[in-house]
Amino acid sequence: MASINIRVQNLEQPMDVAEYLFRRLHEIGIRSIHGLPGDYNLLALDYLPECGLRWVGSVNELNAAYAADGYARVKQMGALITTFGVGELSAINGVAGAFSEHVPVVHIVGCPSTVSQRNGMLLHHTLGNGDFNIFANMSAQISCEVAKLTNPNEIATQIDHALRVCFIRSRPVYIMLPTDMVQAKVEGARLKEPIDLSEPPNDPESEAYVVEVVLKYLRAAKNPVILVDACAIRHRVLDEVHDLIEKTNLPVFVTPMGKGAVNEEHPTYGGVYAGDGSHPPQVKDMVESSDLILTIGALKSDFNTAGFSYRTSQLNTIDLHSDHCIVKYSTYPGVQMRGVLRQVIKQLDASEINAQPAPVVENEVTKNRDSSPVITQAFFWPRVGEFLKKNDIVITETGTANFGIWDTKFPSGVTALSQVLWGSIGWSVGACQGAVLAAADDNSDRRTILFVGDGSFQLTAQELSTMIRLKLKPIIFVICNDGFTIERFIHGMEAEYNDIANWDFKALVDVFGGSKTAKKFAVKTKDELESLLTDPTFNAAECLQFVELYMPKEDAPRALIMTAEASARNNAKTA
Amino acid sequence: MASINIRVQNLEQPMDVAEYLFRRLHEIGIRSIHGLPGDYNLLALDYLPECGLRWVGSVNELNAAYAADGYARVKQMGALITTFGVGELSAINGVAGAFSEHVPVVHIVGCPSTVSQRNGMLLHHTLGNGDFNIFANMSAQISCEVAKLTNPNEIATQIDHALRVCFIRSRPVYIMLPTDMVQAKVEGARLKEPIDLSEPPNDPESEAYVVEVVLKYLRAAKNPVILVDACAIRHRVLDEVHDLIEKTNLPVFVTPMGKGAVNEEHPTYGGVYAGDGSHPPQVKDMVESSDLILTIGALKSDFNTAGFSYRTSQLNTIDLHSDHCIVKYSTYPGVQMRGVLRQVIKQLDASEINAQPAPVVENEVTKNRDSSPVITQAFFWPRVGEFLKKNDIVITETGTANFGIWDTKFPSGVTALSQVLWGSIGWSVGACQGAVLAAADDNSDRRTILFVGDGSFQLTAQELSTMIRLKLKPIIFVICNDGFTIERFIHGMEAEYNDIANWDFKALVDVFGGSKTAKKFAVKTKDELESLLTDPTFNAAECLQFVELYMPKEDAPRALIMTAEASARNNAKTA
Repeated sequence: MASINIRVQNLEQPMDVAEYLFRRLHEIGIRSIHGLPGDYNLLALDYLPECGLRWVGSVNELNAAYAADGYARVKQMGALITTFGVGELSAINGVAGAFSEHVPVVHIVGCPSTVSQRNGMLLHHTLGNGDFNIFANMSAQISCEVAKLTNPNEIATQIDHALRVCFIRSRPVYIMLPTDMVQAKVEGARLKEPIDLSEPPNDPESEAYVVEVVLKYLRAAKNPVILVDACAIRHRVLDEVHDLIEKTNLPVFVTPMGKGAVNEEHPTYGGVYAGDGSHPPQVKDMVESSDLILTIGALKSDFNTAGFSYRTSQLNTIDLHSDHCIVKYSTYPGVQMRGVLRQVIKQLDASEINAQPAPVVENEVTKNRDSSPVITQAFFWPRVGEFLKKNDIVITETGTANFGIWDTKFPSGVTALSQVLWGSIGWSVGACQGAVLAAADDNSDRRTILFVGDGSFQLTAQELSTMIRLKLKPIIFVICNDGFTIERFIHGMEAEYNDIANWDFKALVDVFGGSKTAKKFAVKTKDELESLLTDPTFNAAECLQFVELYMPKEDAPRALIMTAEASARNNAKTA
Repeated sequence: MASINIRVQNLEQPMDVAEYLFRRLHEIGIRSIHGLPGDYNLLALDYLPECGLRWVGSVNELNAAYAADGYARVKQMGALITTFGVGELSAINGVAGAFSEHVPVVHIVGCPSTVSQRNGMLLHHTLGNGDFNIFANMSAQISCEVAKLTNPNEIATQIDHALRVCFIRSRPVYIMLPTDMVQAKVEGARLKEPIDLSEPPNDPESEAYVVEVVLKYLRAAKNPVILVDACAIRHRVLDEVHDLIEKTNLPVFVTPMGKGAVNEEHPTYGGVYAGDGSHPPQVKDMVESSDLILTIGALKSDFNTAGFSYRTSQLNTIDLHSDHCIVKYSTYPGVQMRGVLRQVIKQLDASEINAQPAPVVENEVTKNRDSSPVITQAFFWPRVGEFLKKNDIVITETGTANFGIWDTKFPSGVTALSQVLWGSIGWSVGACQGAVLAAADDNSDRRTILFVGDGSFQLTAQELSTMIRLKLKPIIFVICNDGFTIERFIHGMEAEYNDIANWDFKALVDVFGGSKTAKKFAVKTKDELESLLTDPTFNAAECLQFVELYMPKEDAPRALIMTAEASARNNAKTA
């Protein structure tokens, strides 16, 4: 203790570790922190209010992790506090999802004191083997930084570094906070200097080289196109993307994971490219016959490509990524897309470019309306497009919603959240809580609208309780179609294992305390849907609104059917 | 493929891998398998019915893992099937709990085909980095065996070995089943030979040596006692424990984690030893003044010892464990307690032993009944003891229930489930589903009774839905006391982070489809409690019965208060 005490006297502005950490999170823009209390984190939680942070006790840790992910996707960064062992492991799938999908989430784990750890005490929430590093080692696999705060001399630096890495790499970091370090002193005067979240610039020569190559091919191309994908969103180059479109008038497409990256009202927006799953259908031809596809933040996963159905050639492709670029078959490690894009925009003149007209994208409501009252997937998703408003936040669950939304044209400013790569069912309910809270923390009037299947909803249904408790105002559509439709289309259409228990879904609103504040709806026909979607009060979204939306069990969006067939084939492949 | 085909022709009885695995699980006594469907496991699930196994689709994977744990504690072994990445990581906290608490759970993970893995495909449910071993590496930390089934020539051996290790070490194993291995052929004729689950015997000389030492001290002791703990249950030496008591008439005590290990109606049963938290109070003196404490399966964790409040000396202690024994300060690695116990029982004569009378243990209902109608923790737990019947299965959640139960004297044959070491809140709801199902699978009429706090219940509430769907008949007491009482007593008695949302708990029964089959109760006074507990229909437990049990927010069992104070002190310790 002696050395620490002496050191404290040398600090200009001694500050408790918890306060330092939380003030940094506030500085970055975080206003709400998700998690659950546990005895190893309780003392730290006491510091939240004074640092301007709201504690959001979720109903369980996985939901909290999903919520922190949703929060980060709307507000640039999210944070999660759990307790050692039990809490952090309950959350780990949610954090893994954030890693997979490039979402910056700070996972703070309250853990036993450094003294207990050194003594190898047989404490609750341990494996009983005296090893206090096991869980950190597990999380290291799904974090881009692990910071174990055990030495007050290092802690402030560790915190600043971890937060910087989290933001720049746009992936989770793990911070292990022992109970006896919560009140250890660090230099609070460091807070006068803002945390450095700036990306290191590209090496100028490398960047110039890449830019020149890109420009050369862009100028020479007869029918170039731009394809914007998930990592353009996650690595925050959407301003550059839009500047590039404005400058060049090139036709621009998005992948399913790139939905929401581009203003879909822009005249050169041409729709969704996903190989055979493209929408409108002519997108496939236009992209695949292009002699130069400039991809931005590509993430060519199975579900993002309708089952690897791209028919493009790398010889016609330039891929810009957050940490490297690829031009045809040449890779340029360490050259980041932001700098390249900025230079390309600066040096390019529209007159040098062959910009073909983009396909016209519309919400094909009339075309997909049949005479039956049944709400089909084909009808629903274009109809949603007409319902959406500027700047809405739209969350789609893995399953029918994630594929249906390919056929939805967004108004401008829509933020779309989905988890197409990681695909953890249930994610969207937690993510919705985080997203709607993030919008509230921004004092914005953006509506938050969730589309989730009944099977998926059941996994994380309790998070509805948190939304009710916090008086948040999402619109929640639970697609009631009797179970795991996406699995049915992959394998076991009639199998019992794809069935679910029959719940009275909307009654949950009352169970969770929303009987006076929230509204409930059940919609079974096209007419009922039409009334609801055109109702001004419903549109105003002034309270939590929960909609049971009935669709047929064996109906699915066309893109889902295609992708599911490809998955089944791939799973069966034996050589 | 050629080599595999040739090999198939040489098999006496070619059998698909999934069938082989499931037939072995059936042979071990498993009848129901928990989990969730996911496209990487669907094909395997098709094999369950023909192998005599029931698929229990839980509402989420964590609940499924808890259920498999509960099932294993009643039926010796449990099994869980999840899908790659998302499913397995959602379950991992539940499996870690089984590891921590020595519960044999087989975790089968359906994963991408070996072909996809070799090609590093960018598939859903991956981190997008082509690494298919990350999740197995994480699970390796909490499993005593990892079996990756990638080569048909090895698979039958791998399966048999993994199941054997799971049983003998009484801890989880992880089996990775790629989609293209589900139908690969193995030698089905191996099933004619039963799987070998026998423990290897002790080395005879070592065992004889330890037995002699133990006998010497037992014969010399003036007031020896026996203390039975968790690992006596988990490593299945309860028959030996009872034979030893019968033979010696020595006073026998249990620890909190050892509750249920000993017939509490046995005349030499003396109560719960947990240092300062012992019950009845004279147990503390009797154990701590003993000149020879023979512990069986000890697990001296903080919550099992009322905050490390043992005042015993290793000089007066013999510890028998599943893989070693300790006599005073001598350790005998590899000498297992079962063999030692059997020899001690065989060689000992009651006349050689100084057996003091044990304290009389009673359910102190009258003593703890005050004149107020309020149901106090002090009153409730002894009253529960009078309600319980022979062979009941009792599950207590981490929190007030886990500590309150120290003051409950059980009838004979009661199996008690708790998670005192791992202490993951919410565990008990899933574990209850598994336990009540295990009893049903045994065609037994044992009642299954759950005590869970409102805060903990919320984490895993959906598993009530599974119990309703399967028409199981537990009695569920949800202790409604406004939040996380155990945390309040550790830190933050009035803190908002220890509050929870206010739910209409019993209405969940209807939401989940139980309105016609289940019964609901709300109990707020001692009189109401008395009526309920003496109602013959309620006692008969012929349908699912859900009880809201109201207790004061700031009331807690005495043992909890003591342990929480010790935890708070330990968390704060700085040198």
